[in-house]
Amino acid sequence: MKISVQEQILDANDAVAAANRALLDSRRIHGLNLMASPGAGKTSLILATCARLPAQTRPGVIEGDLASRIDADTLAAHGIPVVQINTGGGCHLDAPMIRGALGELSLESIDLLFVENVGNLVCPANFALGTHHNVVVASVSEGHDKPYKYPGMFAAADVVVLNKADLVEVFEFDLAYFQRGVAIVNPGAPVLAVSCKRGLGLEDWMAWVMGR
Amino acid sequence: MKISVQEQILDANDAVAAANRALLDSRRIHGLNLMASPGAGKTSLILATCARLPAQTRPGVIEGDLASRIDADTLAAHGIPVVQINTGGGCHLDAPMIRGALGELSLESIDLLFVENVGNLVCPANFALGTHHNVVVASVSEGHDKPYKYPGMFAAADVVVLNKADLVEVFEFDLAYFQRGVAIVNPGAPVLAVSCKRGLGLEDWMAWVMGR
Repeated sequence: MKISVQEQILDANDAVAAANRALLDSRRIHGLNLMASPGAGKTSLILATCARLPAQTRPGVIEGDLASRIDADTLAAHGIPVVQINTGGGCHLDAPMIRGALGELSLESIDLLFVENVGNLVCPANFALGTHHNVVVASVSEGHDKPYKYPGMFAAADVVVLNKADLVEVFEFDLAYFQRGVAIVNPGAPVLAVSCKRGLGLEDWMAWVMGR
Repeated sequence: MKISVQEQILDANDAVAAANRALLDSRRIHGLNLMASPGAGKTSLILATCARLPAQTRPGVIEGDLASRIDADTLAAHGIPVVQINTGGGCHLDAPMIRGALGELSLESIDLLFVENVGNLVCPANFALGTHHNVVVASVSEGHDKPYKYPGMFAAADVVVLNKADLVEVFEFDLAYFQRGVAIVNPGAPVLAVSCKRGLGLEDWMAWVMGR
């Protein structure tokens, strides 16, 4: 019973995700779904990326949080078009939420859409949104064992961005161990070490983004 | 339909949680449910606490992870009795999982039971386990806005332990803003700043633990 209800929910979600994807494609918008633990640096990565985009690539953001519009206000203060979704208690975004948010954005003014998912290293990985790629943001301060403990999230990544990489020594972070953990669940997924705060390592990330 | 299934699940969980509580009480075991984001320092707090317990207070741990037994192995290497629960994809522990794990522990050899929940700042708050108190472990590296963004978790806390407090300056962490956020959703909940790694601020935490 429980599984059947869950399957129905996921099937319904997938149908809306496919429609979202078709809408994005028809507008020539590329969509990235950013997933991470709370505080890993999703908003910081969006800000750092927007500051480095060529002028002809216009960004937009759908911001997901249980509550508050702290991140949306931060992004709006930088002149980035943003729509806030508050999930109430919900632990992840889903495709119908994205469908609603897409209706509130001026899609003709956007080329690159960031969807910042709810901070959660488990649930968001199970729900397709209609975006084109999954970006998992990990951070050095969380520790190097996360790919081993949260394999589902790292398996869902098209790219892993490792933020706060300026603090590798402070946190005694074993980068090789982390990379090995990603490779076990997701062979070939690139791991890009960056510091959004210090502006380090972002060239490879920007190359990845512009290559999509 | 969705809500009704969810309510049934929560009701069934609550019944088992009550039985778990009765079992713990009958054995004079005090149970703490530790909840946090991934990498906030739940295992580190358990280790730091066990190292400071008086000899007559014997600890035990139920360790929850989606996958791996990394933390259980760490605790066992310190001579702490531990049972690992792997949830598969599950984003939180529930009362039936705890019931199973209690059957694997020598309850007559335990006075203080730590349950380390899955690293997740959303879902674990909704499921009673039968433990006596909820401990929410936040960390400075996650940022000072977490109580505003994850109010449900902070509302569920009997105490908030703020770990990695030695890094307040590195992360430009605004402690007053954090404390205000906790107070909004949970007036009166103590916020205890510690560094498990540096052994700082643990006196107040130990006093809280031994006062239960």
